[in-house]
Amino acid sequence: MTQRPVFIVSDRSGVTAETICHTLLSQFPGIEFNQVSLPFIDNDEKARKVAEQIIDAGRSSGHKPLVFTTFVDEIFSSVLADTDAEIFDLFDPFINRMEMALGQRSSHQPGQSHGMANVVHYNQRIDAVNYAMHCDDGLHTRDYAKANVILLAASRSGKTPTCLYLALHFGFYAANYPLTEEDFERDQLPSPVLDNKDRVFGLTIDPKRLHQIRSERRPNSDYASLKRCQLDVISARRMFDRYDIPHCDSTNYSVEELGSTIKHRMGLQSSLY
Amino acid sequence: MTQRPVFIVSDRSGVTAETICHTLLSQFPGIEFNQVSLPFIDNDEKARKVAEQIIDAGRSSGHKPLVFTTFVDEIFSSVLADTDAEIFDLFDPFINRMEMALGQRSSHQPGQSHGMANVVHYNQRIDAVNYAMHCDDGLHTRDYAKANVILLAASRSGKTPTCLYLALHFGFYAANYPLTEEDFERDQLPSPVLDNKDRVFGLTIDPKRLHQIRSERRPNSDYASLKRCQLDVISARRMFDRYDIPHCDSTNYSVEELGSTIKHRMGLQSSLY
Repeated sequence: MTQRPVFIVSDRSGVTAETICHTLLSQFPGIEFNQVSLPFIDNDEKARKVAEQIIDAGRSSGHKPLVFTTFVDEIFSSVLADTDAEIFDLFDPFINRMEMALGQRSSHQPGQSHGMANVVHYNQRIDAVNYAMHCDDGLHTRDYAKANVILLAASRSGKTPTCLYLALHFGFYAANYPLTEEDFERDQLPSPVLDNKDRVFGLTIDPKRLHQIRSERRPNSDYASLKRCQLDVISARRMFDRYDIPHCDSTNYSVEELGSTIKHRMGLQSSLY
Repeated sequence: MTQRPVFIVSDRSGVTAETICHTLLSQFPGIEFNQVSLPFIDNDEKARKVAEQIIDAGRSSGHKPLVFTTFVDEIFSSVLADTDAEIFDLFDPFINRMEMALGQRSSHQPGQSHGMANVVHYNQRIDAVNYAMHCDDGLHTRDYAKANVILLAASRSGKTPTCLYLALHFGFYAANYPLTEEDFERDQLPSPVLDNKDRVFGLTIDPKRLHQIRSERRPNSDYASLKRCQLDVISARRMFDRYDIPHCDSTNYSVEELGSTIKHRMGLQSSLY
């Protein structure tokens, strides 16, 4: 069976439309989709080419294409309306009701969400990314005063991607510190972490999963052995309990879910929103 | 005037709902919103507490709260419906039409989008993040064979955050190489970059903006001087022209816009979608 053609058409980056579309399509797990993103469709000529592409895809696949758009300019919407595709205007159902509720017309300006509208916000995100890299994996612990959150976990439990996500997505200053055998032997938190304990969040992980991850990196090493992974995970958990550090299990969480959990549990507010 | 209360309520991470909400609210630039995210509302008791919180916010602000939800479980929706808030169910307007178009009921499973549904995809993202850090700033150029894209630009033109975004968001292997004075003097691409030219994308930037960014890092240095920034940007552009390297100006682009532009221009397909 041919794949069902799906188009995500936007006058800017299409990031919002892709996110929504991805979520909606995931509700239909049995169907195979052929997704094509067409960002930056910001003039009539591009819109007409997109319309042709959609019509072609409908013909060659034998399926009515699904088209997800976030156009705020109605001229583009009308070009797409002639394609005989199933059009989902992702903002249309809400904007009118919001205008009513807020007693104000919407600005109808494209790309307010992922654009450069606010250069201060932009700088903060970039600064936060630099900070996450600067304070990755236990580096530069003397700069923890600036951290919004310090992730603590045994090596390879998911700290680094989570910190980078917190920086990029929310603009948070997120450091991370790997708990090592040395820390476990001393059975106390390293002092830079202890000094900033109010902002520390711990990650645990299923030892089997940790064993799998470490084995990809250093196969057949003591570091990757299941026994060592079990010991590290147990020791980390004991440390979290002893110091009353909030923590969660990263095994079945995506980076986004970990990010939201940490933001929520640590009561962090993003200044980007 | 008090801020208008806005709640983003989700049974999972709320990432999708936050993205949509952020975009919708940005269409009303004159209004001040007080946004509260309430993720992981996955049982009746939590839902009832949320309802109370919404009612309280309505009373204390004197405004009818706006509530954005992505519940797939109708029980939670009905709890919120009793709050006298303005409820925006972000998927409801689309799911029924999609069911009709696709001839299939939706799964009504929460959190299919940012969850761990696919461990292979998850591993690829993490691997891509590790790769972006491993190949950041001209490191480990011998590993460029694995790259989906290699960003090329003068120092501080936005390469690193863009690579990390490409890795986290799309799972792309994104390396980056800083063009230095040495490269400009030789007036040719460094050989590891030249050997992988089909996957190279260039970033340019407004010299004044570059001057500003570099000055924050190394104030009053030659490196940060406007003259040096102008020279670096001109030299980089000349290099892109000479080798016919696709490029764009990062000055007025957000990380998301740069990511989408690069994906689009380089014809990259994310296997995560």
